[in-house]
Amino acid sequence: MSERFSEQRVFIVGVGLIGGSIGAALRSRHPELRVTGVGRSADRLDSACNQGILCDHVPELTAELLADRCVVVLCTPVHIIQRQLQKLAKICGPDVLITDGGSVKAGIAKTVSGLKNLKSVFVGAHPIAGGENSGFEHSTPDLFEDRLCVLTPVDSPENQVTRAKQFWQEMGCRCVCLDPDEHDRILAMTSHLPHIVAALMAAVVRPESLPFAGTGFLDTTRIAAGNPDLWTSILKGNSQHVVDSLLRFEEATRNFREAIQEGRFDDANQVLAKAADCRRSLGENASAPEKDDNNC
Amino acid sequence: MSERFSEQRVFIVGVGLIGGSIGAALRSRHPELRVTGVGRSADRLDSACNQGILCDHVPELTAELLADRCVVVLCTPVHIIQRQLQKLAKICGPDVLITDGGSVKAGIAKTVSGLKNLKSVFVGAHPIAGGENSGFEHSTPDLFEDRLCVLTPVDSPENQVTRAKQFWQEMGCRCVCLDPDEHDRILAMTSHLPHIVAALMAAVVRPESLPFAGTGFLDTTRIAAGNPDLWTSILKGNSQHVVDSLLRFEEATRNFREAIQEGRFDDANQVLAKAADCRRSLGENASAPEKDDNNC
Repeated sequence: MSERFSEQRVFIVGVGLIGGSIGAALRSRHPELRVTGVGRSADRLDSACNQGILCDHVPELTAELLADRCVVVLCTPVHIIQRQLQKLAKICGPDVLITDGGSVKAGIAKTVSGLKNLKSVFVGAHPIAGGENSGFEHSTPDLFEDRLCVLTPVDSPENQVTRAKQFWQEMGCRCVCLDPDEHDRILAMTSHLPHIVAALMAAVVRPESLPFAGTGFLDTTRIAAGNPDLWTSILKGNSQHVVDSLLRFEEATRNFREAIQEGRFDDANQVLAKAADCRRSLGENASAPEKDDNNC
Repeated sequence: MSERFSEQRVFIVGVGLIGGSIGAALRSRHPELRVTGVGRSADRLDSACNQGILCDHVPELTAELLADRCVVVLCTPVHIIQRQLQKLAKICGPDVLITDGGSVKAGIAKTVSGLKNLKSVFVGAHPIAGGENSGFEHSTPDLFEDRLCVLTPVDSPENQVTRAKQFWQEMGCRCVCLDPDEHDRILAMTSHLPHIVAALMAAVVRPESLPFAGTGFLDTTRIAAGNPDLWTSILKGNSQHVVDSLLRFEEATRNFREAIQEGRFDDANQVLAKAADCRRSLGENASAPEKDDNNC
């Protein structure tokens, strides 16, 4: 795909695990590309430059910087992305592509729909990758390799959707397009609910019992180590779908508990068997849809 | 510790992942030791012999085999262990040590308390190791390395407790003694609840959403791939404590959902922060208590 990649400059706003890994992937594949970090923590961004993730950095984006063709990737927490879009609407030129890495898409789409200048340059995205560690120090150029990236264009011009798709494919992603609200409904179940469940598991166990935790507990709770503020931002941004997924999970839990209380172990066994079939079918790499599913 | 290990023969009843890994550990450390599998699946046990896990195998234990000093390790599902103990009570000699690898201990202890011949030879054990795979084909000699093994002696003679402890230390385990019911109460929370939660997560997600699952979902649901029948046996054997742990988890889930519904995101954030602290404190190897905790 590299021959199709014609960007000259990329601005990464928010150089954490996601932003840093985008920088790492771009720098390793396109040494000639100018990758610029955007942020006010000059010392941290200097370190990211020294680590080879960025070429340089600026404290903020300006109309001058955004007058020419370039890509802006917003990798800050979800609620901050919405604020940044308001600001970008005032300074963004017509040849810019703005995309983002936010985990919740409907709120961002709604913000953009109210900003006339942005509709033609913004294509929302969510690369389904990450982990319990945050900070650019954990960046890796292959974080996105073979991962799914959901694009959520709303009235975006076709050439910008193609450009966004090419950008994320450069990261190694396989792209699929979804309606923003549909994205949020699905991810509430496949990502936000698992995080909450992992956190509640870790929170309810008495500290004195932790030495008896085995690999099952460690696996099940691993993502609970994730940054609480980032996750609060995600849950706030997707609260209705998250509540719906919790209600569904609560019902399943109550039914399972009642089966055990009432001695209906065949019913419990059926749930465990269905779950085992489901989990075995996934193996260790779920987010790799067939190419035919790619409806972008 | 090897110089203290003075067993000549070990019978492994139920050669699956746990039994097979015990065989593998013994055979790799004590090539002179006779490790005999017990079971009626001659073909499978032949394969285990070929794999080097066993020296030989017999279809069942007899009074003749148990007349001399030896160790019997019961590695079948929990409810079957209880049946096997009834049978062993009739044929077991005084120089035998019987131990087991069952995940639930109070029911087994109760069975033994009613079997006069067994009280002086049985020391229950639960090595906290395993995984979502079953079958001796997945056996590995280091499955128990640095893992916790909970011993649950009840009125067992001190020399037998010492012998059981030495046996499990030979596997690489660190041993700790607990009352059987206390073991079951703790493990309901650290092992049985995580399995149920992982299974429910895997069961409630719509199949068409699975391509959008990321590494968080994969981690959180990994143990759901475990054998449903083994787990049903465990939940049945520990139903009261499992129900208690589920009730506690349900309350935490309801509280969290209500916080989101009512817009109390600071409360949600506090739960996530507590969970993150807890999970980070565990790292990747929880079941390694300090030596001082070893009260055997």
